[in-house]
Amino acid sequence: MTLDPKPFLTSIFDAAVAAADPNLTIRSHLPAKPKGRTILVGAGKGAAQMAAAFEKAWDGPLEGLIVTRYGYGARTERLEVIEAAHPVPDEAGLEASRRLLELVSGLTGDDLVVALICGGGSALLPSPAAGLTLADEIAVNEALLASGAPIAAMNTIRKHVSTIKGGRLAAAAWPARVVSLVVSDIPGDNPALVASGPTIPDAGSREDALAAIAAYGIGLPEAVMAHIQSVESAAPRPDDEKFARNEVHLIASAGVSLEAAAAEARRQGVEAVILSDAIEGEAREVGSVHAAIAREVAARNRPFAKPVLILSGGETTVTLKAKGKGGRNSEFLLAFAIGIAGVEGIHALAADTDGIDGSEDNAGAFCDGSTVPRMRAAGVDAKAMLAANNAWTAFNAVGDLFVPGPTGTNVNDLRAILVR
Amino acid sequence: MTLDPKPFLTSIFDAAVAAADPNLTIRSHLPAKPKGRTILVGAGKGAAQMAAAFEKAWDGPLEGLIVTRYGYGARTERLEVIEAAHPVPDEAGLEASRRLLELVSGLTGDDLVVALICGGGSALLPSPAAGLTLADEIAVNEALLASGAPIAAMNTIRKHVSTIKGGRLAAAAWPARVVSLVVSDIPGDNPALVASGPTIPDAGSREDALAAIAAYGIGLPEAVMAHIQSVESAAPRPDDEKFARNEVHLIASAGVSLEAAAAEARRQGVEAVILSDAIEGEAREVGSVHAAIAREVAARNRPFAKPVLILSGGETTVTLKAKGKGGRNSEFLLAFAIGIAGVEGIHALAADTDGIDGSEDNAGAFCDGSTVPRMRAAGVDAKAMLAANNAWTAFNAVGDLFVPGPTGTNVNDLRAILVR
Repeated sequence: MTLDPKPFLTSIFDAAVAAADPNLTIRSHLPAKPKGRTILVGAGKGAAQMAAAFEKAWDGPLEGLIVTRYGYGARTERLEVIEAAHPVPDEAGLEASRRLLELVSGLTGDDLVVALICGGGSALLPSPAAGLTLADEIAVNEALLASGAPIAAMNTIRKHVSTIKGGRLAAAAWPARVVSLVVSDIPGDNPALVASGPTIPDAGSREDALAAIAAYGIGLPEAVMAHIQSVESAAPRPDDEKFARNEVHLIASAGVSLEAAAAEARRQGVEAVILSDAIEGEAREVGSVHAAIAREVAARNRPFAKPVLILSGGETTVTLKAKGKGGRNSEFLLAFAIGIAGVEGIHALAADTDGIDGSEDNAGAFCDGSTVPRMRAAGVDAKAMLAANNAWTAFNAVGDLFVPGPTGTNVNDLRAILVR
Repeated sequence: MTLDPKPFLTSIFDAAVAAADPNLTIRSHLPAKPKGRTILVGAGKGAAQMAAAFEKAWDGPLEGLIVTRYGYGARTERLEVIEAAHPVPDEAGLEASRRLLELVSGLTGDDLVVALICGGGSALLPSPAAGLTLADEIAVNEALLASGAPIAAMNTIRKHVSTIKGGRLAAAAWPARVVSLVVSDIPGDNPALVASGPTIPDAGSREDALAAIAAYGIGLPEAVMAHIQSVESAAPRPDDEKFARNEVHLIASAGVSLEAAAAEARRQGVEAVILSDAIEGEAREVGSVHAAIAREVAARNRPFAKPVLILSGGETTVTLKAKGKGGRNSEFLLAFAIGIAGVEGIHALAADTDGIDGSEDNAGAFCDGSTVPRMRAAGVDAKAMLAANNAWTAFNAVGDLFVPGPTGTNVNDLRAILVR
């Protein structure tokens, strides 16, 4: 293979980012113009960027309201942006939920509701059921996060204490048609689980909610338990006729971006495999596991046949032990570089898809089997730099930082490992 | 698939262990009886067990000497066992090296030398070149371990300061024929790299050693550098006629055991993949990465198609933060169980192939998507147990410990994940 590794890996990053750029993805998912009004609603940390991209692409009349996190607003011309608290909801979120439900009330079958849904929307849309308070909803969320319950179970419980989650916002918009454009931040990309699915019902029932509460030993306020036990909490069913004309489009996610990256590799003649779009853990340890797999492929042509591009996504964490320069991707990659030191045929890029990895202006870095010896030649001890959370300094010393600049989108981390 | 997961995963463990049992593997690699004497030599942490197995299986005359770590001796009838220091060599090791070289001197072409080689043998066979001291050899080893250099480079440097490593013991035995039976503890299973290959030369030259010293900035004592720079340090070449009649058999390794495990799965109709035989890192983080890959397979049938058994080996570590009960395999598996909580179709076993995982009498444990809720039902909080290094207690509470008893062998950890 005559592939030049750095340009190749850069093209893989570019493909992953392009697949998540709201200006590109929203344009390719515009709904047909309705006879009546077009109302835009939205919630999530990236909802303001999505709304700005939507109104740029939409040439008909448009009105609407979206809620995002404090400080996450974007400039919009025709759409109102409310900021509220995340991850612990506040009164501003309550008010946003109330106004969104009001906005979609009284529509007709000729009207269109476009819902822009992305990560963080659940906390930004508190809307406790009658008899419950904001404090109750906060208590529910804290108990869920502490429980270790999977996200599907958490979602089933959340929607039974809310007047907006689990499809209830879409039900309120009926008979208007609702088109949901979803950017997923969750493993598996089930759109009904993003932001607790305000416009997308899932099948979880009251009985499922009660079973999950028991299975995971989730301690909820008494008033909340009483509400879930009463038939009044029943959520709309996915097969309800109110949802019959609705559409859901997953327009971006870590998984979608990884698939785009894989497709770009194949276009260039390199087979690609996706390990997972949701790898979490301490960055250096995740790097060490990836290195072991890459070495296995390099030495034994398994579990994947060479040449191959191994892709993974998700978001690692860094437990800081020192005040070095770096971020989770460069730290991942430094541990990876140590793990493949001296091994030929492995080239890797790890980068944050938002273009900024941690404390400096790089998105990540490149490495190969020569990286650690080259660091050494430059007077830099790779292991000492890793111990000092100073991966940026190590990669800077050998000119292997990756600095594409901010990308305007975010589908977590991209790790691309070429073995040939 | 009607497979019952626990018996299936147990059969996989049994196959991996059988492939590493010296009583079985040595019997299937016995050399032809020679006309002359049969001399057994050996070095490594498992060498005494290997020697005991060999003399049980060998029905001709036999004499010999092996060196193992203090406390690692085994009962032998006809063979002498010396114990010496590991990982930092001592005078007992020096004496063992001297006696081994003496033992193989003056043999004829009718004689057979059987060399039993396994992990730890390098430290157990200090034998500094003329003009160097035991302290020099210890200093070399410390510098190598701190350097981050890959094992092949370390081996090339080591053998150029030794009179026994890098095939020199086999060269001393010439014209006797040397048959090496090797249990590998290193990634890639190159037999020349196990125990620094006393009977197996590799191709690394003096020039390679000097290049690696420069590339990894390895600071060595002056006398050592002078020796490596002199032509006297030159190691025997693999194509030397002295090695022409010799044989090398890799009789056990993590990789061999994983292949046996994969073969057993296929025999039972389940496709198997090997991620790596050398995965290292903090057990809970490695568990989390394995969980992400298993979830990807369960949800999306990639990077491996279901049903599939995902295997990995190597040795994780546990950074103790509390005084709970457990070991690296049960801790790996508890993090894995948390990562797959509520996901259907995943069943896993993690176990130490020596049969004992850490502080208790279990080798590891089983888990599936119901493990965490079942722990909860038993009053056990999985995350709290993981935080308290108390994985044994968590798995004990749900009856999912795996207790096969000591196996008499050790090829590190076995992780077997069935996704269907």
